[in-house]
Amino acid sequence: MKAVAYIEPMKVEVQDIEYPSLELKDGPGVNPANVGRKCPHGVILKLVATNICGSDQHMVRGRTTAPPGLILGHEITGEVVEVGRDVEFIKQGDLCSAPFNIACGRCRMCKEGHTGVCLNVNPDRPGSAYGYVDMGGWQGGQAEYVMVPYADWNLLKFPDRDQAMEKILDLTMLSDIFPTGYHGCVSAGVTTGSTVYIAGAGPVGLAAAASAQLLGAAAVIVGDMNAERLAHARSFGCETVDLTEDGTLPEKIEQIVGEPVVDASVDAVGFEARGYGKDAGEAPATVLNSIMEVTRAAGRLGIPGLYVTGDPGAPDESAKEGSLSIRIGLGWAKSHSFTTGQCPVMRYHRQLMNAILRDKVQIAKAVNADVISLDDAPQGYAQFDSGVAKKFVIDPHGMIAH
Amino acid sequence: MKAVAYIEPMKVEVQDIEYPSLELKDGPGVNPANVGRKCPHGVILKLVATNICGSDQHMVRGRTTAPPGLILGHEITGEVVEVGRDVEFIKQGDLCSAPFNIACGRCRMCKEGHTGVCLNVNPDRPGSAYGYVDMGGWQGGQAEYVMVPYADWNLLKFPDRDQAMEKILDLTMLSDIFPTGYHGCVSAGVTTGSTVYIAGAGPVGLAAAASAQLLGAAAVIVGDMNAERLAHARSFGCETVDLTEDGTLPEKIEQIVGEPVVDASVDAVGFEARGYGKDAGEAPATVLNSIMEVTRAAGRLGIPGLYVTGDPGAPDESAKEGSLSIRIGLGWAKSHSFTTGQCPVMRYHRQLMNAILRDKVQIAKAVNADVISLDDAPQGYAQFDSGVAKKFVIDPHGMIAH
Amino acid sequence: MKAVAYIEPMKVEVQDIEYPSLELKDGPGVNPANVGRKCPHGVILKLVATNICGSDQHMVRGRTTAPPGLILGHEITGEVVEVGRDVEFIKQGDLCSAPFNIACGRCRMCKEGHTGVCLNVNPDRPGSAYGYVDMGGWQGGQAEYVMVPYADWNLLKFPDRDQAMEKILDLTMLSDIFPTGYHGCVSAGVTTGSTVYIAGAGPVGLAAAASAQLLGAAAVIVGDMNAERLAHARSFGCETVDLTEDGTLPEKIEQIVGEPVVDASVDAVGFEARGYGKDAGEAPATVLNSIMEVTRAAGRLGIPGLYVTGDPGAPDESAKEGSLSIRIGLGWAKSHSFTTGQCPVMRYHRQLMNAILRDKVQIAKAVNADVISLDDAPQGYAQFDSGVAKKFVIDPHGMIAH
Amino acid sequence: MKAVAYIEPMKVEVQDIEYPSLELKDGPGVNPANVGRKCPHGVILKLVATNICGSDQHMVRGRTTAPPGLILGHEITGEVVEVGRDVEFIKQGDLCSAPFNIACGRCRMCKEGHTGVCLNVNPDRPGSAYGYVDMGGWQGGQAEYVMVPYADWNLLKFPDRDQAMEKILDLTMLSDIFPTGYHGCVSAGVTTGSTVYIAGAGPVGLAAAASAQLLGAAAVIVGDMNAERLAHARSFGCETVDLTEDGTLPEKIEQIVGEPVVDASVDAVGFEARGYGKDAGEAPATVLNSIMEVTRAAGRLGIPGLYVTGDPGAPDESAKEGSLSIRIGLGWAKSHSFTTGQCPVMRYHRQLMNAILRDKVQIAKAVNADVISLDDAPQGYAQFDSGVAKKFVIDPHGMIAH
Repeated sequence: MKAVAYIEPMKVEVQDIEYPSLELKDGPGVNPANVGRKCPHGVILKLVATNICGSDQHMVRGRTTAPPGLILGHEITGEVVEVGRDVEFIKQGDLCSAPFNIACGRCRMCKEGHTGVCLNVNPDRPGSAYGYVDMGGWQGGQAEYVMVPYADWNLLKFPDRDQAMEKILDLTMLSDIFPTGYHGCVSAGVTTGSTVYIAGAGPVGLAAAASAQLLGAAAVIVGDMNAERLAHARSFGCETVDLTEDGTLPEKIEQIVGEPVVDASVDAVGFEARGYGKDAGEAPATVLNSIMEVTRAAGRLGIPGLYVTGDPGAPDESAKEGSLSIRIGLGWAKSHSFTTGQCPVMRYHRQLMNAILRDKVQIAKAVNADVISLDDAPQGYAQFDSGVAKKFVIDPHGMIAH
Repeated sequence: MKAVAYIEPMKVEVQDIEYPSLELKDGPGVNPANVGRKCPHGVILKLVATNICGSDQHMVRGRTTAPPGLILGHEITGEVVEVGRDVEFIKQGDLCSAPFNIACGRCRMCKEGHTGVCLNVNPDRPGSAYGYVDMGGWQGGQAEYVMVPYADWNLLKFPDRDQAMEKILDLTMLSDIFPTGYHGCVSAGVTTGSTVYIAGAGPVGLAAAASAQLLGAAAVIVGDMNAERLAHARSFGCETVDLTEDGTLPEKIEQIVGEPVVDASVDAVGFEARGYGKDAGEAPATVLNSIMEVTRAAGRLGIPGLYVTGDPGAPDESAKEGSLSIRIGLGWAKSHSFTTGQCPVMRYHRQLMNAILRDKVQIAKAVNADVISLDDAPQGYAQFDSGVAKKFVIDPHGMIAH
Repeated sequence: MKAVAYIEPMKVEVQDIEYPSLELKDGPGVNPANVGRKCPHGVILKLVATNICGSDQHMVRGRTTAPPGLILGHEITGEVVEVGRDVEFIKQGDLCSAPFNIACGRCRMCKEGHTGVCLNVNPDRPGSAYGYVDMGGWQGGQAEYVMVPYADWNLLKFPDRDQAMEKILDLTMLSDIFPTGYHGCVSAGVTTGSTVYIAGAGPVGLAAAASAQLLGAAAVIVGDMNAERLAHARSFGCETVDLTEDGTLPEKIEQIVGEPVVDASVDAVGFEARGYGKDAGEAPATVLNSIMEVTRAAGRLGIPGLYVTGDPGAPDESAKEGSLSIRIGLGWAKSHSFTTGQCPVMRYHRQLMNAILRDKVQIAKAVNADVISLDDAPQGYAQFDSGVAKKFVIDPHGMIAH
Repeated sequence: MKAVAYIEPMKVEVQDIEYPSLELKDGPGVNPANVGRKCPHGVILKLVATNICGSDQHMVRGRTTAPPGLILGHEITGEVVEVGRDVEFIKQGDLCSAPFNIACGRCRMCKEGHTGVCLNVNPDRPGSAYGYVDMGGWQGGQAEYVMVPYADWNLLKFPDRDQAMEKILDLTMLSDIFPTGYHGCVSAGVTTGSTVYIAGAGPVGLAAAASAQLLGAAAVIVGDMNAERLAHARSFGCETVDLTEDGTLPEKIEQIVGEPVVDASVDAVGFEARGYGKDAGEAPATVLNSIMEVTRAAGRLGIPGLYVTGDPGAPDESAKEGSLSIRIGLGWAKSHSFTTGQCPVMRYHRQLMNAILRDKVQIAKAVNADVISLDDAPQGYAQFDSGVAKKFVIDPHGMIAH
């Protein structure tokens, strides 16, 4: 079968690889302790939709230690075509969303709802994902088929297949980006009547903006330096701040909400942040520091944007180890709280599915979903890297009407 | 009347100053916009007990911009001797604890329980305190008398005067240190059965340790480089880690709880942290970084230890502005949450009073309260700075039996 | 000045009464212990809008011990025309909403956010309101002017007067009905993607329905026996169940959401509930029992509908004392939680105001606000009692454009 | 093997039954839809300790529809002697506690932490248990061996076998009674400094009292009519109220805490409550109504005491269907919240285990654990029914030192 592999910085390609089985086999990036792991609790999914994620870009840009040949893809929606002997409730033919976090459903973290840091799926450290460096070696889902372990626990079945196929471009966002944006807002305390600043108008930022609206925010302000993405944010009712323009961020926020602070902020950028201005280089803590500046006292900051423990391309030695110069004194003076980490997708995906199925949110439109074939994945990666205001959805079997 | 004034780095002295009135008068450190502010909602307290706090030390060491002559003291317990016309429920003769945070009880922050960042008492920024630099200029309470504004809102009346005087050394900790340690634990998620690491065995650390026990923690581990303070922590049932000894912190924690991580950590040190080892200099982010290392995935970090926006004595330019090199990549990988800021004392003082009055906690013993006279305050500051395992309680009127 | 007085069962009239002062004077229904209470912390409001509430109807129908002459009205929005000497932040000319719960802002309950059960304003028991029997005797607001005590604490100022007057029909709902409906939903756990059943399509039920939509509910189902009110519920996107039609409630809910239960339910009816069917008499526990039946296991029930401790018109002796036959065994088997009581309006009114001012909700339309003059109040009461699908807004000074 | 069977009202006997297998076989009380259910996810436990529970008494007294021959016992602690093929993390030889609620770990309720109302283990309705009528038919654990399904999800492994055997009388309380009492307190909002009233001094009441102490309550008051049980409550520091003595409950509470109300109350009695006084008959709502009376406004009521949907022995027709006359008007006036239902044991058992293992609580002493042999179980039931202040722990294999 075909799958998308990382080859070297700025290069991915579609390869022919072996059809998956209910066993984790050796391959590029597979943790030795995971090789040969039997998964009678797993299923094989035929991919219906599998998206390119901003966090894939970190690998593709060479900002991680991902090995050549690693099969990419952790945003997975598909049809169950094979069922392990110990799977009891998920059935062949079910159309399902798989959270990007792989979780066992049997450890303390899973029992407490922290599926983003499951203790049993990644021998290196808590937390795992499909197709990602240092995440245990579970094969990625930008492919025709993928194995999903602990299927009864992980999979969210769509209640009606036909209804689901009609809304598949929205439902495919349940595997990562929609819950991730929503988690950013929830952990920032966004609620009815909040004013919210979202740093970053990439797909996670736009998903966070749509989530803030769904949560009843009074004003949702998105900041970025990419005019096309900001225009898209405005298309569904957000206010925007163009960070390339003159004026400070607090001033621009004051023009919108009447005071230089918001109730809640979300960092939807992460460690590859850039300073203001056209020629500014990377400034990895700039987003964190600016959202402290514009968040009111006692406010909370949601940080779904990825910060890493090792960044070979970082601008300085500290940043290479994930240590950044953060204005903690400012945050402390304002009694801020900070929530970091992978979104535990399972905590949110069922309720967000219900909101999609009853037309309470148009997430595909908010992130500007664009369907491409598996063969076009390399071009999708290139375009995404260029900053287009699109979220690429790979359709490996041509099942999506468009 | 007599009061303790900051004079210059490493020097405080007892001065004769004017008896307070129900008006905020000009003086060293008083914000011009606050000068002449009428306080018919205030009362005059005769101080029964007023403690020296670790955060006073930052000023006294010259690590802030506190002006000479600033009257110190924000840990205030006293008897009401004069009542403003707008005070309805607090009466003359009441024995009360005053939260160190001054709050108006009428702004959005107060209504939402964030009394540490009240909007109406400090013209500079949200949040205020008695006797502290940049906190609005409210006169300090290391004195014979002090004015407490918004008395109906701020003061906690002890239900029985005689009972209160018997436990006055415990009750005096309600104005700051006990709620502050408790808030550190609550915001770190400490609960029944938790394993907890408390960084710092000064009074806040010891109060946090006692709080963790009160919250039902299974293991409370206190780390410091001061052997005397660690011995005191052991005296009431804590485990300890001597950071001057060989071995890493995770190793030492593993020896105690069987794994190299705890469920929750509290930073009771703040920005004047030091590196490990005898000759280590200041390393302002070392505590924050080490507690990320030893806190389990999905854990929470309580940060009552003070971080400042300006530190003239900091080791480098970034730190002078309160910007520290923090291993945010590590925290993110572990899905940590961080809670910073002043403790909103009012949120906790009533319940902690009840725990004291019914003998559920011995907080004076935990922090090793030591009573001194107002005249001995300068020696108290000096001793405290030397690292003795004591919490100095000033007894301006000789009312405390000891 | 003119005001609306309760005279006898089914009769209210507009009377000339004395202009209010900053003192609680004697009168019908005033608690003796409150007579002569000085309120230098109060203001006089010129009423801009003051609504007739379903809970007023209980008095007007003679289902309480309200004395003749009691001035009605607890839904108060107005302009400050006189300011007590101890009011510091509210100014003359401010346009404000007053929560129907009167609260002191100085007791334990207020400090903990439970303003619906303030300890200092009603000598009889915790909790108070304007113009209501057994609530302390604070004069009602269906009048030209009204005194609001503890004004700095109680009043919510609208940020811009002109903007506020444009949306005054929405903003007038902030004093009671909108927060009450919202509180019902919040305490029932309504959130993104929830399925919700609202029992009752009167104004509180409709406000709860609009609140559920604002909270992101996937399906909002309103049940009633009044076809006109159900039609109005459908007009803004609710699903409805006509309880006079054949079929059980679980069956009807299953037709809408595919299963016979919802995630959350709200009782917006209270003790004057009626049994199913045309000729059914009162059945005061029928709503409580039916919402247990249709709420899923582990669900929560919000009960803003009023239940009373004394009901002279109740159908049996137990009900006369507020004791009803409740299927607690069913609720227990389903692990239900129940939240009762007055909505603490202050907890919600600011965020709901922001949602109104930024057009995130059309609450006036949802409850079908209808403006009448003060002189027409008696007819308004009569019409409301007849079951029209309207919320009457009294406009005492002809200030509302319509 | 031997097991304890219910025979008829007031009669249980020890029978020889078949050794369990990893399949749910037919038998008395087994739901037909569960017969033959394969459990490759299960293990066989050799019982180390299995306790008699107050809720067993309801069956034994004939107050349920339990069929003759039903094997009793849902408080299960044992050693794993056989492991199903789908069990991955629990191993042979592990010493474990099994929550009395059986849960699948794969449904929505389990994922949300509501393991007391799992959707997949009881064909009749959400929620299940071992050895209990209408709970699916899972064989009881008052036996030599028992099958535990979904073992990786359900079982809590004790970290060290020898340490566990030393504290086995405490650890055996983790399967039900300790978490149940703790849940009652947590859902009543008990925290540091609370005053708490516990209705009932049976084992659940005593466990709730010990939990309230562990949670830091300032005053724990236990009420009952059984002098022996009250004396036992006093033995570990509780205050007590003897309900057979003159005086009202509010008066007695006022004598202890200085006001006639407490912050939080727990109903540890349930539907077999009796009225006050020597000759009083059953009064099933009396506990619920009295705790509303003595709980402060805005307080919360935890209701772990069992209320049933069908009670053949109830005093009237309504009560036979689980409908009781409850003073909801009083609760509403006080803004009370109520939490009912089975305790979701898994939510608490790990943290309570840690508290036991580090000597933070002596739960066996609090409930007065008394070890008996399996053959003595019938006498244990009889004694327990007579009201002795003991919690009987059956030791089927003579493994407990005593």
